[in-house]
Amino acid sequence: MKEEIRQAPIGVFDSGVGGLTVAREIMRQMPKEKIIYFGDTARVPYGSKSKETVTRFSRQIARFLLSHDVKTIVVACNTASAYALDELEKEFDVPMIGVVKPGAKMAVTRTRNGRIGVIGTEGTIGSGIYNEYIRSVRADAVIYGKACPLFVPLVEEGLWEDPVTEEIARRYLGELIDLDIDTLVLGCTHYPLIRSVIGRIMGDGVTLVNPAYETAVELKAMLGEQHLLNDVEPALGSNRYQFYVSDGAEKFKQFANSIMKYGVLSAKTIHIEEY
Amino acid sequence: MKEEIRQAPIGVFDSGVGGLTVAREIMRQMPKEKIIYFGDTARVPYGSKSKETVTRFSRQIARFLLSHDVKTIVVACNTASAYALDELEKEFDVPMIGVVKPGAKMAVTRTRNGRIGVIGTEGTIGSGIYNEYIRSVRADAVIYGKACPLFVPLVEEGLWEDPVTEEIARRYLGELIDLDIDTLVLGCTHYPLIRSVIGRIMGDGVTLVNPAYETAVELKAMLGEQHLLNDVEPALGSNRYQFYVSDGAEKFKQFANSIMKYGVLSAKTIHIEEY
Repeated sequence: MKEEIRQAPIGVFDSGVGGLTVAREIMRQMPKEKIIYFGDTARVPYGSKSKETVTRFSRQIARFLLSHDVKTIVVACNTASAYALDELEKEFDVPMIGVVKPGAKMAVTRTRNGRIGVIGTEGTIGSGIYNEYIRSVRADAVIYGKACPLFVPLVEEGLWEDPVTEEIARRYLGELIDLDIDTLVLGCTHYPLIRSVIGRIMGDGVTLVNPAYETAVELKAMLGEQHLLNDVEPALGSNRYQFYVSDGAEKFKQFANSIMKYGVLSAKTIHIEEY
Repeated sequence: MKEEIRQAPIGVFDSGVGGLTVAREIMRQMPKEKIIYFGDTARVPYGSKSKETVTRFSRQIARFLLSHDVKTIVVACNTASAYALDELEKEFDVPMIGVVKPGAKMAVTRTRNGRIGVIGTEGTIGSGIYNEYIRSVRADAVIYGKACPLFVPLVEEGLWEDPVTEEIARRYLGELIDLDIDTLVLGCTHYPLIRSVIGRIMGDGVTLVNPAYETAVELKAMLGEQHLLNDVEPALGSNRYQFYVSDGAEKFKQFANSIMKYGVLSAKTIHIEEY
Protein backbone atom coordinates (compact mmCIF):
# COMPACT_ATOMS: atom_id res chain seq x y z
CA MET A 1 0.00 0.00 0.00
CA LYS A 2 2.68 2.50 1.10
CA GLU A 3 4.67 1.71 -2.03
CA GLU A 4 1.63 2.51 -4.12
CA ILE A 5 1.15 5.87 -2.41
CA ARG A 6 4.82 6.78 -2.94
CA GLN A 7 4.37 6.23 -6.64
CA ALA A 8 1.22 8.37 -6.76
CA PRO A 9 1.52 11.71 -8.55
CA ILE A 10 2.07 15.15 -7.01
CA GLY A 11 -0.88 17.48 -7.67
CA VAL A 12 0.06 21.05 -8.62
CA PHE A 13 -2.39 23.84 -9.39
CA ASP A 14 -2.51 27.49 -10.34
CA SER A 15 -5.02 29.95 -11.78
CA GLY A 16 -3.36 29.48 -15.17
CA VAL A 17 0.15 29.10 -16.53
CA GLY A 18 2.18 30.80 -13.79
CA GLY A 19 2.37 27.67 -11.63
CA LEU A 20 4.33 25.97 -14.39
CA THR A 21 7.39 27.78 -13.00
CA VAL A 22 6.83 25.75 -9.81
CA ALA A 23 6.14 22.48 -11.68
CA ARG A 24 9.37 23.03 -13.59
CA GLU A 25 11.33 23.27 -10.33
CA ILE A 26 9.73 20.08 -9.00
CA MET A 27 10.73 18.28 -12.22
CA ARG A 28 14.30 19.51 -11.82
CA GLN A 29 14.67 18.66 -8.15
CA MET A 30 12.60 15.42 -8.09
CA PRO A 31 12.95 13.85 -11.53
CA LYS A 32 11.34 10.56 -10.46
CA GLU A 33 8.06 12.14 -9.37
CA LYS A 34 4.91 12.10 -11.46
CA ILE A 35 2.96 15.36 -11.67
CA ILE A 36 -0.65 16.22 -12.41
CA TYR A 37 -0.95 19.92 -13.16
CA PHE A 38 -4.20 21.86 -13.28
CA GLY A 39 -4.45 25.44 -14.62
CA ASP A 40 -7.80 27.19 -14.12
CA THR A 41 -7.65 28.99 -17.47
CA ALA A 42 -11.45 29.43 -17.68
CA ARG A 43 -11.44 31.61 -14.56
CA VAL A 44 -7.94 33.14 -14.63
CA PRO A 45 -6.86 35.55 -13.12
CA TYR A 46 -7.32 35.02 -9.38
CA GLY A 47 -5.28 38.02 -8.20
CA SER A 48 -8.08 40.58 -8.29
CA LYS A 49 -10.84 38.29 -6.99
CA SER A 50 -12.14 37.84 -3.45
CA LYS A 51 -11.03 35.39 -0.78
CA GLU A 52 -14.39 33.63 -0.83
CA THR A 53 -14.31 33.11 -4.61
CA VAL A 54 -10.66 32.02 -4.74
CA THR A 55 -11.33 29.55 -1.90
CA ARG A 56 -14.38 28.10 -3.67
CA PHE A 57 -12.41 27.66 -6.89
CA SER A 58 -9.44 26.11 -5.03
CA ARG A 59 -11.70 23.63 -3.25
CA GLN A 60 -13.06 22.38 -6.58
CA ILE A 61 -9.53 21.95 -7.88
CA ALA A 62 -8.40 20.04 -4.78
CA ARG A 63 -11.34 17.66 -5.31
CA PHE A 64 -10.36 17.22 -8.95
CA LEU A 65 -6.73 16.45 -8.08
CA LEU A 66 -7.77 14.01 -5.33
CA SER A 67 -10.01 12.21 -7.81
CA HIS A 68 -6.68 11.42 -9.53
CA ASP A 69 -5.26 10.01 -6.28
CA VAL A 70 -2.51 12.56 -5.79
CA LYS A 71 -0.35 11.99 -2.69
CA THR A 72 0.12 15.71 -2.01
CA ILE A 73 -1.12 19.05 -3.31
CA VAL A 74 1.12 21.99 -4.19
CA VAL A 75 -0.76 25.29 -4.29
CA ALA A 76 1.47 26.88 -6.95
CA CYS A 77 -0.35 30.21 -6.90
CA ASN A 78 0.40 32.94 -4.40
CA THR A 79 -3.17 34.27 -4.29
CA ALA A 80 -4.62 30.81 -3.63
CA SER A 81 -1.87 30.12 -1.06
CA ALA A 82 -2.72 33.38 0.68
CA TYR A 83 -6.50 32.95 0.64
CA ALA A 84 -7.30 29.24 0.49
CA LEU A 85 -4.47 27.02 1.80
CA ASP A 86 -5.59 27.07 5.46
CA GLU A 87 -9.10 26.09 4.47
CA LEU A 88 -7.94 23.31 2.14
CA GLU A 89 -5.67 21.85 4.83
CA LYS A 90 -8.64 21.65 7.20
CA GLU A 91 -10.90 19.99 4.64
CA PHE A 92 -8.66 17.51 2.88
CA ASP A 93 -6.52 14.72 4.16
CA VAL A 94 -3.30 14.89 2.13
CA PRO A 95 -0.20 16.93 2.98
CA MET A 96 -0.23 20.32 1.27
CA ILE A 97 2.23 23.08 0.63
CA GLY A 98 1.83 26.62 -0.72
CA VAL A 99 4.38 28.98 -2.20
CA VAL A 100 4.12 31.78 0.37
CA LYS A 101 5.74 30.14 3.41
CA PRO A 102 8.81 28.88 1.49
CA GLY A 103 9.19 32.28 -0.20
CA ALA A 104 8.98 34.10 3.13
CA LYS A 105 11.55 31.80 4.73
CA MET A 106 13.97 32.26 1.86
CA ALA A 107 13.62 36.04 2.01
CA VAL A 108 14.65 36.01 5.67
CA THR A 109 17.65 33.80 4.86
CA ARG A 110 18.78 36.16 2.11
CA THR A 111 18.32 39.60 3.64
CA ARG A 112 21.22 41.28 5.37
CA ASN A 113 19.61 44.53 6.47
CA GLY A 114 16.22 43.03 7.36
CA ARG A 115 14.38 45.24 4.85
CA ILE A 116 12.32 43.10 2.48
CA GLY A 117 10.05 44.03 -0.43
CA VAL A 118 7.23 41.79 -1.62
CA ILE A 119 5.47 42.18 -4.97
CA GLY A 120 2.34 40.26 -5.95
CA THR A 121 -1.31 40.50 -6.95
CA GLU A 122 -3.80 42.72 -5.15
CA GLY A 123 -5.11 39.62 -3.34
CA THR A 124 -1.73 38.42 -2.13
CA ILE A 125 -0.49 41.84 -1.02
CA GLY A 126 -3.84 42.84 0.49
CA SER A 127 -3.96 39.66 2.58
CA GLY A 128 -0.76 40.66 4.40
CA ILE A 129 0.25 37.00 4.50
CA TYR A 130 3.89 37.53 3.52
CA ASN A 131 4.28 40.01 6.36
CA GLU A 132 2.84 37.49 8.78
CA TYR A 133 5.12 34.63 7.73
CA ILE A 134 8.24 36.77 7.44
CA ARG A 135 7.69 38.24 10.91
CA SER A 136 7.10 34.77 12.36
CA VAL A 137 10.66 33.89 11.29
CA ARG A 138 12.27 37.27 11.94
CA ALA A 139 10.25 39.53 14.18
CA ASP A 140 12.24 42.72 13.48
CA ALA A 141 12.00 42.48 9.68
CA VAL A 142 10.68 45.59 7.92
CA ILE A 143 8.41 44.59 5.02
CA TYR A 144 7.06 46.64 2.14
CA GLY A 145 4.34 45.13 -0.05
CA LYS A 146 3.38 46.41 -3.49
CA ALA A 147 0.59 45.10 -5.73
CA CYS A 148 1.53 44.96 -9.43
CA PRO A 149 -1.77 44.12 -11.18
CA LEU A 150 -0.58 44.69 -14.77
CA PHE A 151 2.36 42.26 -14.59
CA VAL A 152 0.17 39.19 -15.16
CA PRO A 153 -1.51 40.44 -18.37
CA LEU A 154 1.85 41.73 -19.65
CA VAL A 155 3.45 38.33 -19.06
CA GLU A 156 0.49 36.53 -20.63
CA GLU A 157 0.84 38.79 -23.69
CA GLY A 158 4.46 37.72 -23.96
CA LEU A 159 5.93 41.21 -23.38
CA TRP A 160 8.71 39.78 -21.21
CA GLU A 161 11.36 42.12 -22.58
CA ASP A 162 9.58 45.25 -23.65
CA PRO A 163 9.75 49.00 -23.01
CA VAL A 164 6.11 49.00 -21.83
CA THR A 165 6.77 46.30 -19.24
CA GLU A 166 9.87 48.24 -18.21
CA GLU A 167 7.88 51.47 -17.82
CA ILE A 168 5.13 49.79 -15.77
CA ALA A 169 7.76 48.01 -13.66
CA ARG A 170 9.54 51.32 -13.05
CA ARG A 171 6.29 52.81 -11.68
CA TYR A 172 5.48 49.86 -9.45
CA LEU A 173 9.02 49.38 -8.17
CA GLY A 174 10.08 53.03 -7.88
CA GLU A 175 8.84 53.44 -4.33
CA LEU A 176 10.56 50.20 -3.24
CA ILE A 177 13.93 51.42 -4.51
CA ASP A 178 13.74 54.46 -2.26
CA LEU A 179 13.03 52.27 0.78
CA ASP A 180 16.49 50.70 0.91
CA ILE A 181 15.33 47.08 0.70
CA ASP A 182 18.00 44.48 -0.08
CA THR A 183 15.66 41.58 -0.91
CA LEU A 184 12.58 41.40 -3.12
CA VAL A 185 10.18 38.46 -3.12
CA LEU A 186 8.58 37.67 -6.52
CA GLY A 187 5.26 36.88 -4.87
CA CYS A 188 3.38 35.74 -7.96
CA THR A 189 4.31 32.73 -10.04
CA HIS A 190 4.16 34.77 -13.25
CA TYR A 191 6.87 37.20 -12.16
CA PRO A 192 9.95 34.97 -12.61
CA LEU A 193 9.24 35.26 -16.34
CA ILE A 194 10.04 39.00 -16.21
CA ARG A 195 12.81 38.55 -13.69
CA SER A 196 15.41 40.24 -15.85
CA VAL A 197 13.35 43.46 -16.23
CA ILE A 198 12.71 43.53 -12.47
CA GLY A 199 16.37 42.81 -11.72
CA ARG A 200 17.57 45.60 -14.01
CA ILE A 201 15.33 48.15 -12.29
CA MET A 202 16.08 47.05 -8.73
CA GLY A 203 19.85 46.91 -9.38
CA ASP A 204 22.59 44.54 -8.24
CA GLY A 205 22.18 45.41 -4.55
CA VAL A 206 18.78 43.71 -4.34
CA THR A 207 18.43 39.91 -4.24
CA LEU A 208 15.37 38.58 -6.04
CA VAL A 209 13.68 35.65 -4.30
CA ASN A 210 11.74 33.19 -6.47
CA PRO A 211 9.55 31.06 -4.17
CA ALA A 212 9.27 28.33 -6.84
CA TYR A 213 12.77 27.04 -6.09
CA GLU A 214 12.32 27.03 -2.31
CA THR A 215 8.86 25.46 -2.60
CA ALA A 216 10.34 22.47 -4.42
CA VAL A 217 13.08 22.20 -1.75
CA GLU A 218 10.49 22.19 1.05
CA LEU A 219 8.20 19.82 -0.81
CA LYS A 220 11.05 17.36 -1.13
CA ALA A 221 11.82 17.63 2.59
CA MET A 222 8.15 17.20 3.51
CA LEU A 223 7.70 14.14 1.30
CA GLY A 224 10.98 12.70 2.64
CA GLU A 225 9.86 13.05 6.27
CA GLN A 226 6.58 11.37 5.51
CA HIS A 227 8.26 8.59 3.49
CA LEU A 228 6.35 9.67 0.42
CA LEU A 229 9.21 10.27 -2.02
CA ASN A 230 9.10 8.09 -5.07
CA ASP A 231 12.35 6.14 -5.47
CA VAL A 232 11.29 4.13 -8.49
CA GLU A 233 11.99 5.46 -11.95
CA PRO A 234 8.60 5.63 -13.73
CA ALA A 235 8.38 3.26 -16.67
CA LEU A 236 8.86 4.73 -20.12
CA GLY A 237 5.59 5.89 -21.61
CA SER A 238 3.95 5.98 -18.18
CA ASN A 239 2.55 9.47 -18.63
CA ARG A 240 4.81 11.06 -16.06
CA TYR A 241 3.47 14.58 -16.52
CA GLN A 242 -0.20 15.25 -17.12
CA PHE A 243 -1.70 18.67 -17.76
CA TYR A 244 -5.33 19.66 -17.33
CA VAL A 245 -6.97 23.05 -17.85
CA SER A 246 -10.50 24.42 -17.62
CA ASP A 247 -10.24 26.16 -21.02
CA GLY A 248 -8.04 26.61 -24.08
CA ALA A 249 -5.90 23.47 -23.97
CA GLU A 250 -4.12 24.30 -27.23
CA LYS A 251 -3.09 27.81 -26.16
CA PHE A 252 -1.97 26.47 -22.77
CA LYS A 253 0.15 23.83 -24.46
CA GLN A 254 1.93 26.42 -26.59
CA PHE A 255 2.65 28.67 -23.64
CA ALA A 256 3.76 25.73 -21.50
CA ASN A 257 6.11 24.46 -24.18
CA SER A 258 7.73 27.89 -24.39
CA ILE A 259 8.82 27.73 -20.74
CA MET A 260 9.23 24.01 -19.98
CA LYS A 261 12.31 21.95 -20.67
CA TYR A 262 10.27 18.78 -21.03
CA GLY A 263 7.70 18.76 -23.79
CA VAL A 264 4.11 19.21 -22.66
CA LEU A 265 2.82 16.49 -24.93
CA SER A 266 -0.83 17.34 -24.42
CA ALA A 267 -3.30 19.13 -22.19
CA LYS A 268 -6.90 18.11 -21.56
CA THR A 269 -9.85 20.40 -20.89
CA ILE A 270 -12.24 19.55 -18.02
CA HIS A 271 -15.27 21.27 -16.46
CA ILE A 272 -13.83 22.22 -13.09
CA GLU A 273 -17.10 23.58 -11.66
CA GLU A 274 -18.47 20.04 -11.61
CA TYR A 275 -15.99 19.01 -8.89
CA MET B 1 -50.75 39.97 -18.47
CA LYS B 2 -49.21 41.96 -21.33
CA GLU B 3 -49.07 45.03 -19.09
CA GLU B 4 -47.17 43.03 -16.51
CA ILE B 5 -44.63 41.89 -19.11
CA ARG B 6 -44.12 45.46 -20.34
CA GLN B 7 -43.20 46.51 -16.83
CA ALA B 8 -40.75 43.64 -16.40
CA PRO B 9 -37.04 44.58 -16.32
CA ILE B 10 -34.53 44.44 -19.15
CA GLY B 11 -31.73 41.96 -18.44
CA VAL B 12 -28.22 43.14 -19.37
CA PHE B 13 -25.04 41.17 -18.93
CA ASP B 14 -21.31 41.38 -19.50
CA SER B 15 -18.17 39.59 -18.33
CA GLY B 16 -17.60 42.44 -15.90
CA VAL B 17 -17.95 46.22 -15.88
CA GLY B 18 -17.66 46.99 -19.62
CA GLY B 19 -21.36 46.37 -20.27
CA LEU B 20 -22.20 49.27 -17.99
CA THR B 21 -21.47 51.52 -20.98
CA VAL B 22 -24.43 49.79 -22.68
CA ALA B 23 -26.67 49.92 -19.58
CA ARG B 24 -25.90 53.64 -19.35
CA GLU B 25 -27.16 54.14 -22.93
CA ILE B 26 -30.35 52.20 -22.21
CA MET B 27 -30.99 54.39 -19.16
CA ARG B 28 -30.50 57.51 -21.28
CA GLN B 29 -32.67 56.43 -24.18
CA MET B 30 -35.38 54.55 -22.20
CA PRO B 31 -35.63 56.24 -18.81
CA LYS B 32 -38.80 54.37 -17.85
CA GLU B 33 -37.29 50.91 -18.18
CA LYS B 34 -36.10 48.83 -15.24
CA ILE B 35 -32.75 47.09 -15.63
CA ILE B 36 -31.18 44.04 -14.03
CA TYR B 37 -27.47 44.01 -14.74
CA PHE B 38 -25.18 41.05 -14.22
CA GLY B 39 -21.35 41.29 -14.38
CA ASP B 40 -19.44 38.00 -14.27
CA THR B 41 -16.59 39.41 -12.20
CA ALA B 42 -15.58 35.99 -10.83
CA ARG B 43 -14.71 34.76 -14.31
CA VAL B 44 -13.78 37.98 -16.13
CA PRO B 45 -12.25 38.38 -18.72
CA TYR B 46 -14.04 36.47 -21.51
CA GLY B 47 -12.02 37.85 -24.42
CA SER B 48 -9.22 35.28 -24.32
CA LYS B 49 -11.42 32.26 -23.52
CA SER B 50 -12.93 29.68 -25.87
CA LYS B 51 -16.32 29.70 -27.56
CA GLU B 52 -17.43 26.64 -25.62
CA THR B 53 -16.56 28.20 -22.25
CA VAL B 54 -18.03 31.62 -23.03
CA THR B 55 -21.24 29.93 -24.23
CA ARG B 56 -21.49 27.83 -21.05
CA PHE B 57 -21.02 30.92 -18.88
CA SER B 58 -23.54 32.94 -20.93
CA ARG B 59 -26.15 30.19 -20.64
CA GLN B 60 -25.90 30.25 -16.83
CA ILE B 61 -26.31 34.03 -16.85
CA ALA B 62 -29.36 33.87 -19.13
CA ARG B 63 -30.93 31.40 -16.68
CA PHE B 64 -30.17 33.73 -13.79
CA LEU B 65 -31.71 36.75 -15.56
CA LEU B 66 -34.80 34.75 -16.54
CA SER B 67 -35.23 33.69 -12.92
CA HIS B 68 -35.81 37.42 -12.36
CA ASP B 69 -38.49 37.46 -15.09
CA VAL B 70 -36.72 39.79 -17.51
CA LYS B 71 -38.67 40.56 -20.68
CA THR B 72 -35.57 40.68 -22.89
CA ILE B 73 -31.84 40.00 -22.65
CA VAL B 74 -29.13 42.37 -23.89
CA VAL B 75 -25.79 40.65 -24.40
CA ALA B 76 -23.67 43.71 -23.59
CA CYS B 77 -20.37 41.99 -24.27
CA ASN B 78 -18.87 41.65 -27.73
CA THR B 79 -17.18 38.32 -27.03
CA ALA B 80 -20.41 36.77 -25.70
CA SER B 81 -22.37 38.30 -28.60
CA ALA B 82 -19.88 36.80 -31.05
CA TYR B 83 -19.73 33.34 -29.47
CA ALA B 84 -22.98 32.71 -27.60
CA LEU B 85 -25.89 34.82 -28.87
CA ASP B 86 -27.04 32.36 -31.58
CA GLU B 87 -27.05 29.53 -29.07
CA LEU B 88 -28.94 31.55 -26.44
CA GLU B 89 -31.59 32.59 -28.97
CA LYS B 90 -32.21 28.93 -29.80
CA GLU B 91 -32.49 27.89 -26.17
CA PHE B 92 -34.44 30.66 -24.52
CA ASP B 93 -37.78 32.14 -25.30
CA VAL B 94 -37.34 35.92 -24.83
CA PRO B 95 -36.22 38.42 -27.47
CA MET B 96 -32.46 39.01 -27.34
CA ILE B 97 -30.03 41.50 -28.77
CA GLY B 98 -26.25 41.60 -28.87
CA VAL B 99 -23.87 44.50 -29.49
CA VAL B 100 -22.21 43.21 -32.65
CA LYS B 101 -25.04 43.54 -35.17
CA PRO B 102 -25.94 47.13 -34.19
CA GLY B 103 -22.25 48.09 -34.23
CA ALA B 104 -21.76 46.56 -37.68
CA LYS B 105 -24.82 48.33 -39.07
CA MET B 106 -23.71 51.68 -37.73
CA ALA B 107 -20.23 51.25 -39.21
CA VAL B 108 -21.75 50.77 -42.65
CA THR B 109 -23.90 53.87 -42.20
CA ARG B 110 -20.90 55.95 -41.23
CA THR B 111 -18.21 54.86 -43.68
CA ARG B 112 -17.72 56.84 -46.88
CA ASN B 113 -14.89 54.90 -48.51
CA GLY B 114 -16.11 51.44 -47.41
CA ARG B 115 -12.90 50.69 -45.49
CA ILE B 116 -13.71 49.78 -41.89
CA GLY B 117 -11.48 48.81 -38.98
CA VAL B 118 -12.70 46.72 -36.04
CA ILE B 119 -10.86 46.40 -32.73
CA GLY B 120 -11.83 43.94 -30.00
CA THR B 121 -10.73 40.98 -27.91
CA GLU B 122 -9.00 37.93 -29.39
CA GLY B 123 -12.33 36.08 -29.23
CA THR B 124 -14.36 38.74 -31.02
CA ILE B 125 -11.79 39.38 -33.74
CA GLY B 126 -10.93 35.70 -34.18
CA SER B 127 -14.62 34.82 -34.65
CA GLY B 128 -14.82 37.03 -37.76
CA ILE B 129 -18.37 37.97 -36.79
CA TYR B 130 -18.03 41.70 -37.49
CA ASN B 131 -16.84 40.91 -41.01
CA GLU B 132 -19.83 38.66 -41.55
CA TYR B 133 -22.41 41.21 -40.37
CA ILE B 134 -20.77 44.17 -42.09
CA ARG B 135 -20.59 42.26 -45.40
CA SER B 136 -24.25 41.21 -45.07
CA VAL B 137 -25.16 44.92 -45.11
CA ARG B 138 -22.53 46.09 -47.59
CA ALA B 139 -20.97 43.32 -49.61
CA ASP B 140 -18.07 45.37 -51.00
CA ALA B 141 -16.86 46.66 -47.63
CA VAL B 142 -13.18 46.10 -46.85
CA ILE B 143 -12.72 45.17 -43.20
CA TYR B 144 -9.59 45.02 -41.07
CA GLY B 145 -9.78 43.38 -37.63
CA LYS B 146 -7.21 43.83 -34.89
CA ALA B 147 -7.23 42.18 -31.44
CA CYS B 148 -6.12 44.49 -28.61
CA PRO B 149 -5.80 42.15 -25.60
CA LEU B 150 -4.12 44.63 -23.22
CA PHE B 151 -6.84 47.31 -23.50
CA VAL B 152 -9.15 45.56 -21.01
CA PRO B 153 -6.59 45.25 -18.19
CA LEU B 154 -5.40 48.82 -18.84
CA VAL B 155 -8.99 50.12 -18.58
CA GLU B 156 -9.64 48.03 -15.46
CA GLU B 157 -6.49 49.51 -13.89
CA GLY B 158 -7.88 52.98 -14.57
CA LEU B 159 -5.10 54.04 -16.97
CA TRP B 160 -7.59 55.78 -19.27
CA GLU B 161 -5.30 58.73 -20.00
CA ASP B 162 -1.80 57.42 -19.67
CA PRO B 163 1.40 57.30 -21.74
CA VAL B 164 1.48 53.49 -21.41
CA THR B 165 -2.04 53.12 -22.79
CA GLU B 166 -1.07 55.53 -25.54
CA GLU B 167 2.05 53.51 -26.41
CA ILE B 168 0.14 50.21 -26.48
CA ALA B 169 -2.65 51.83 -28.53
CA ARG B 170 -0.08 53.16 -30.99
CA ARG B 171 1.24 49.62 -31.53
CA TYR B 172 -2.17 48.06 -31.96
CA LEU B 173 -3.59 50.82 -34.16
CA GLY B 174 -0.49 51.63 -36.22
CA GLU B 175 -1.24 49.08 -38.91
CA LEU B 176 -4.86 50.30 -39.19
CA ILE B 177 -3.74 53.87 -39.84
CA ASP B 178 -1.74 52.76 -42.85
CA LEU B 179 -4.76 50.96 -44.30
CA ASP B 180 -6.73 54.11 -45.06
CA ILE B 181 -9.84 53.18 -43.03
CA ASP B 182 -12.31 55.98 -42.34
CA THR B 183 -14.36 54.20 -39.66
CA LEU B 184 -13.27 52.24 -36.57
CA VAL B 185 -15.64 50.06 -34.54
CA LEU B 186 -14.90 49.94 -30.79
CA GLY B 187 -15.76 46.25 -30.66
CA CYS B 188 -15.42 45.76 -26.91
CA THR B 189 -17.57 47.46 -24.30
CA HIS B 190 -14.47 48.55 -22.36
CA TYR B 191 -13.04 50.58 -25.21
CA PRO B 192 -15.36 53.62 -25.08
CA LEU B 193 -13.61 54.43 -21.79
CA ILE B 194 -10.33 55.04 -23.65
CA ARG B 195 -12.06 56.61 -26.63
CA SER B 196 -10.07 59.82 -26.42
CA VAL B 197 -6.70 58.04 -26.61
CA ILE B 198 -7.90 55.97 -29.57
CA GLY B 199 -9.35 59.06 -31.26
CA ARG B 200 -6.12 61.02 -30.87
CA ILE B 201 -4.09 58.25 -32.49
CA MET B 202 -6.53 57.57 -35.34
CA GLY B 203 -6.93 61.27 -36.13
CA ASP B 204 -9.92 63.38 -37.16
CA GLY B 205 -10.41 61.56 -40.46
CA VAL B 206 -11.58 58.38 -38.73
CA THR B 207 -15.06 58.07 -37.18
CA LEU B 208 -15.20 55.97 -34.02
CA VAL B 209 -18.29 53.77 -33.72
CA ASN B 210 -19.49 52.88 -30.22
CA PRO B 211 -21.98 50.00 -30.53
CA ALA B 212 -23.48 50.83 -27.11
CA TYR B 213 -25.43 53.77 -28.52
CA GLU B 214 -26.78 51.87 -31.53
CA THR B 215 -27.61 48.82 -29.41
CA ALA B 216 -29.91 50.93 -27.25
CA VAL B 217 -31.52 52.40 -30.39
CA GLU B 218 -32.19 48.93 -31.81
CA LEU B 219 -33.36 47.59 -28.47
CA LYS B 220 -35.94 50.36 -28.28
CA ALA B 221 -37.14 49.60 -31.82
CA MET B 222 -37.34 45.88 -31.08
CA LEU B 223 -39.30 46.37 -27.84
CA GLY B 224 -41.56 48.86 -29.62
CA GLU B 225 -42.40 46.41 -32.42
CA GLN B 226 -43.23 43.70 -29.91
CA HIS B 227 -45.29 46.07 -27.74
CA LEU B 228 -42.91 45.51 -24.87
CA LEU B 229 -41.86 49.09 -24.10
CA ASN B 230 -42.74 50.21 -20.62
CA ASP B 231 -44.88 53.38 -20.70
CA VAL B 232 -45.46 53.60 -16.98
CA GLU B 233 -43.06 55.57 -14.84
CA PRO B 234 -41.80 53.13 -12.16
CA ALA B 235 -42.88 54.11 -8.65
CA LEU B 236 -40.34 55.90 -6.51
CA GLY B 237 -38.24 53.47 -4.51
CA SER B 238 -39.17 50.61 -6.82
CA ASN B 239 -35.58 49.48 -7.29
CA ARG B 240 -35.38 50.56 -10.89
CA TYR B 241 -31.77 49.45 -11.41
CA GLN B 242 -30.43 46.30 -9.84
CA PHE B 243 -26.84 45.13 -10.09
CA TYR B 244 -25.55 41.61 -9.51
CA VAL B 245 -22.02 40.27 -9.81
CA SER B 246 -20.33 36.92 -9.24
CA ASP B 247 -17.54 38.46 -7.15
CA GLY B 248 -16.31 41.66 -5.54
CA ALA B 249 -19.55 43.64 -5.19
CA GLU B 250 -17.84 46.53 -3.42
CA LYS B 251 -15.15 46.99 -6.08
CA PHE B 252 -17.78 46.74 -8.81
CA LYS B 253 -19.89 49.38 -7.13
CA GLN B 254 -16.99 51.82 -6.98
CA PHE B 255 -16.11 51.30 -10.63
CA ALA B 256 -19.74 51.53 -11.69
CA ASN B 257 -20.26 54.75 -9.78
CA SER B 258 -17.25 56.28 -11.54
CA ILE B 259 -18.88 55.86 -14.96
CA MET B 260 -22.66 55.99 -14.31
CA LYS B 261 -24.74 59.12 -14.07
CA TYR B 262 -27.22 57.41 -11.75
CA GLY B 263 -25.83 56.13 -8.46
CA VAL B 264 -25.37 52.40 -8.26
CA LEU B 265 -26.86 52.10 -4.82
CA SER B 266 -25.75 48.56 -4.23
CA ALA B 267 -24.56 45.39 -5.93
CA LYS B 268 -25.20 41.84 -4.76
CA THR B 269 -22.93 38.83 -5.16
CA ILE B 270 -24.42 35.54 -6.36
CA HIS B 271 -22.99 32.10 -7.26
CA ILE B 272 -23.56 32.11 -10.99
CA GLU B 273 -22.36 28.52 -11.55
CA GLU B 274 -25.45 27.28 -9.69
CA TYR B 275 -27.75 28.50 -12.49
